[in-house]
Amino acid sequence: MERLDVPPDVVIRRLPLYARSLRYLLDEGVLSVSSQELGERINVTAAQIRKDLSYFGEFGKQGIGYDVEKLLTHIERILGLNHRWPVVLVGAGYLGQAIARYEGFQKQGLQIVGLFDTDPTKIGQQVGDNEIRDYAEMPAIIEKYQVRLSIISVPAAHAQSVADLLIKAGVRAILNYAPIILQTPDDVWVRYIDPVAVLHSMTYYLAREQS
Amino acid sequence: MERLDVPPDVVIRRLPLYARSLRYLLDEGVLSVSSQELGERINVTAAQIRKDLSYFGEFGKQGIGYDVEKLLTHIERILGLNHRWPVVLVGAGYLGQAIARYEGFQKQGLQIVGLFDTDPTKIGQQVGDNEIRDYAEMPAIIEKYQVRLSIISVPAAHAQSVADLLIKAGVRAILNYAPIILQTPDDVWVRYIDPVAVLHSMTYYLAREQS
Repeated sequence: MERLDVPPDVVIRRLPLYARSLRYLLDEGVLSVSSQELGERINVTAAQIRKDLSYFGEFGKQGIGYDVEKLLTHIERILGLNHRWPVVLVGAGYLGQAIARYEGFQKQGLQIVGLFDTDPTKIGQQVGDNEIRDYAEMPAIIEKYQVRLSIISVPAAHAQSVADLLIKAGVRAILNYAPIILQTPDDVWVRYIDPVAVLHSMTYYLAREQS
Repeated sequence: MERLDVPPDVVIRRLPLYARSLRYLLDEGVLSVSSQELGERINVTAAQIRKDLSYFGEFGKQGIGYDVEKLLTHIERILGLNHRWPVVLVGAGYLGQAIARYEGFQKQGLQIVGLFDTDPTKIGQQVGDNEIRDYAEMPAIIEKYQVRLSIISVPAAHAQSVADLLIKAGVRAILNYAPIILQTPDDVWVRYIDPVAVLHSMTYYLAREQS
């Protein structure tokens, strides 16, 4: 029975990991998987998996496990992955260009429909399937493709103004690579990728081992 | 009074964010900050900040706030940032090269001392301050610099074998960009950066808004 509670965000963040493992299993030709086996693959306990999935319906059978394809289809639908999402990417430096070339997006229903930069020497340059465009073209592209999802890969000093531009043009979710917290309205989702902060969270443990 | 409890990992992951905000405040010439103001900057409640910091000692004074420089120094010491950490980076594709060129590492005590790839056409190529080297040179570099920290930016199919190589050579912490969970010994720290999973965790919410 589908629970009526809103799942906590930490559960939502795990769903894509389940989906990814299930996709690998599907590619390997595996038809069913227990919560135990799935848990081992992604370092989550079987109990946690069952609890997470209980927010979304009844899956699997005691003693038999989950039907891989069915569970994957369910989770993809929950995550809205039964259709493709257009994404705009702002900032075409080394990082932005690496992101633009990442083949993992296309395979997972994420299509970069616009790549923007302010550097006049870059505008017009082709990066993979995208041409670097001026910021001035951003609202039209966002409108044309009804873009709600974006990635920011500009220096920290410019990230907030880029976020403002994106939100004004209709974007509702931002993945921010710049090492700065963005101020955004409550109805805009923001996630962060900051390798320095992640590495520093590990030096904590390494420093302890050395002392 | 310093608590004797081991802080939960989720607290450790927040410390670098505090450090970063305090650095910005220091650059701006701000001498003291309340937990309220600090919280607003990083979207964490004042109560959470105070609770997190209580694991590490007594900081700040009721009604006066925190001395920015002192608190930053404390946190950097807790994170082991009072000295520099050598890092090796494996995988010199577009992403690896973008990571190698990221100036944010140097400024934050992280020094990339080795950049490795298996592609013979890349070996010897200069990327920023690093020259791309063959995997065969990895153990010697790791030994020379006593490297404990690493970044993996190779395709998913190769990430596990690269992790095995790194761990065998002495690495104890891995930041993995490949979309695959690594199997590692219990004394090795692994963190993940996967933009597809992060974007998918946001399509969940966007899909709900559209239905």
